[in-house]
Amino acid sequence: MGIDIPANMIAMGYDMPGGPEVLRTEKLPVPTPGAGEVLVRVAYAGVNRPDVIQRMGHYPPPPGASPIPGLEIAGEIVAHGDGVTPECIGQNICALVTGGGYAEYCLAKIDHCLPVPDDLPLDQAAALPETLFTVWHNVFERGWACEGETLLVHGGTSGIGTMATKLGKLFGLTVIVTCGSDEKCAAARSIGADHAINYKTADFVEEVKAITGGAGVQLVLDMVSGDYVPRNLACLAEDGRHVTIAVLGGMKAELNMAQIMARRLTLTGSTLRARPDAFKKLLCDEIVRTAWPLVEEGKLRPEMDHVFPLAEVTAAHQRMEAGDHIGKIVLEMDHG
Amino acid sequence: MGIDIPANMIAMGYDMPGGPEVLRTEKLPVPTPGAGEVLVRVAYAGVNRPDVIQRMGHYPPPPGASPIPGLEIAGEIVAHGDGVTPECIGQNICALVTGGGYAEYCLAKIDHCLPVPDDLPLDQAAALPETLFTVWHNVFERGWACEGETLLVHGGTSGIGTMATKLGKLFGLTVIVTCGSDEKCAAARSIGADHAINYKTADFVEEVKAITGGAGVQLVLDMVSGDYVPRNLACLAEDGRHVTIAVLGGMKAELNMAQIMARRLTLTGSTLRARPDAFKKLLCDEIVRTAWPLVEEGKLRPEMDHVFPLAEVTAAHQRMEAGDHIGKIVLEMDHG
Repeated sequence: MGIDIPANMIAMGYDMPGGPEVLRTEKLPVPTPGAGEVLVRVAYAGVNRPDVIQRMGHYPPPPGASPIPGLEIAGEIVAHGDGVTPECIGQNICALVTGGGYAEYCLAKIDHCLPVPDDLPLDQAAALPETLFTVWHNVFERGWACEGETLLVHGGTSGIGTMATKLGKLFGLTVIVTCGSDEKCAAARSIGADHAINYKTADFVEEVKAITGGAGVQLVLDMVSGDYVPRNLACLAEDGRHVTIAVLGGMKAELNMAQIMARRLTLTGSTLRARPDAFKKLLCDEIVRTAWPLVEEGKLRPEMDHVFPLAEVTAAHQRMEAGDHIGKIVLEMDHG
Repeated sequence: MGIDIPANMIAMGYDMPGGPEVLRTEKLPVPTPGAGEVLVRVAYAGVNRPDVIQRMGHYPPPPGASPIPGLEIAGEIVAHGDGVTPECIGQNICALVTGGGYAEYCLAKIDHCLPVPDDLPLDQAAALPETLFTVWHNVFERGWACEGETLLVHGGTSGIGTMATKLGKLFGLTVIVTCGSDEKCAAARSIGADHAINYKTADFVEEVKAITGGAGVQLVLDMVSGDYVPRNLACLAEDGRHVTIAVLGGMKAELNMAQIMARRLTLTGSTLRARPDAFKKLLCDEIVRTAWPLVEEGKLRPEMDHVFPLAEVTAAHQRMEAGDHIGKIVLEMDHG
């Protein structure tokens, strides 16, 4: 096939947890795919908030995962392990991975790969898996979102927020987001949000009440948690669902259980990375049936913030931590 | 049909909320059934915790409901309103009602009635609807309990606790209950609980861990709430569900949202009385298909504590509040 796989590769790692500056390159052996795995020559890797938290030392990789950061990649399959048909070699895919994305080569489970359509640039492909899997599972599976319902998402311009907005609109939801500035609110609206609330200048609970005519929303996708939780619950309609995917505002929340009972609210949440491979395969299969056709038709594209060369990963993390990004931050591999 | 319906009836009410002694008889007109309703000559009415809370002034009847306490009845249908076939006259039924049970006659929606099998005494029939509807909805519908799973129920000898135990065992659950004395624990086990924990002499979290080999339970049916909630969550296995049906221990609960996310726990809850008629009809239909055949086959019977004459309703409430009852307390109408 003429594909020349080197023995070693450049990857990004760190010796001790810390700020963005701890990230540094290292030379590592190119890994060998095991059963059900493929080796991907990574073109681009998405940057996600969990990468930042991992780098800070607060989110250790699950057992068996690569210690290299990076949860999503796009590139070409260049080798495969047992149980994978050789026809996959040469295909461009994007994949959800449990780690190792910040590298020239990365292993992926073939069951967690999505085929990249010809007209989808690989940098955009790399920006899809993490938010698509997360939003699909938490909004539509765990949160039972249905056409005609209203979704409230905090962090409207984040990777998750922009994907939730786009996917929500494609599946018939009314989407309300919160953002930290009027500029971000404008960006969120241009991305597709029906309503964007500047949480620094307005009480989002009051705004949601006004927007929904007092009825409230059916679903909150929560990545803030902490003291947002009772405020989120105040935004929910009867039978509303509250799905937590991050606790950026703190873990502790004080709830009124009588309200949960009387209004039949549901609180749940999930993390994606630590789930078993079999779960991720099921989720991937469902996304292939439901959301991926929209990618193939060109109707669903990630909101792209900025592509950094892998060597500038520190700047990429600094940009995410500064919170000024709108959409996805992606790393480009050099292969030089 | 020879059924002589008097103009007036004896009912139990109160002038001002307060202790059990505020309950007193009154003479009221026998109500007339509206569309979809039947008039039941009440033989027995179940006593439930919400009756006590209503009498204390903390649980006002929902709009349109009778101010007379009593949420479940058994007796003979003696009249019907529009949209109900006359063949129902003379049938013995038990029914979930939104109020008015503590009376010689009570209106019920025909869609919320269950036929009483010939070999089921009417005092037992009156003891079924409230706990059966509540447990079925919250354990099997809202809580998704499945054969092979383990259920933790507090108040193992209460009406709800005994019904949850019996229904749980009939549908293949392992049932763990908590009770406040060794005697009650023994009673709970004789009723069918696989394990009964004396919460006054043992830490139920540790006991549940020991019983389940550290795995935890799939479902908690919670009527305590308050500071039990974090302890209940500590009892849950991954993907476990926590369903609140009362807040006898307080409304405020402090949760660790990171735990909810990482372990994919779900918290929800419900109240039954205020739900729309259409919901109760759906629930009744499902119970007819699922649990009622077990009543007809004699496999499901309520645990009976004591039957009081209606005139002794104060003693009935005192007994419930003292907490010494095991199973259901029922009132018998005099029709003298």
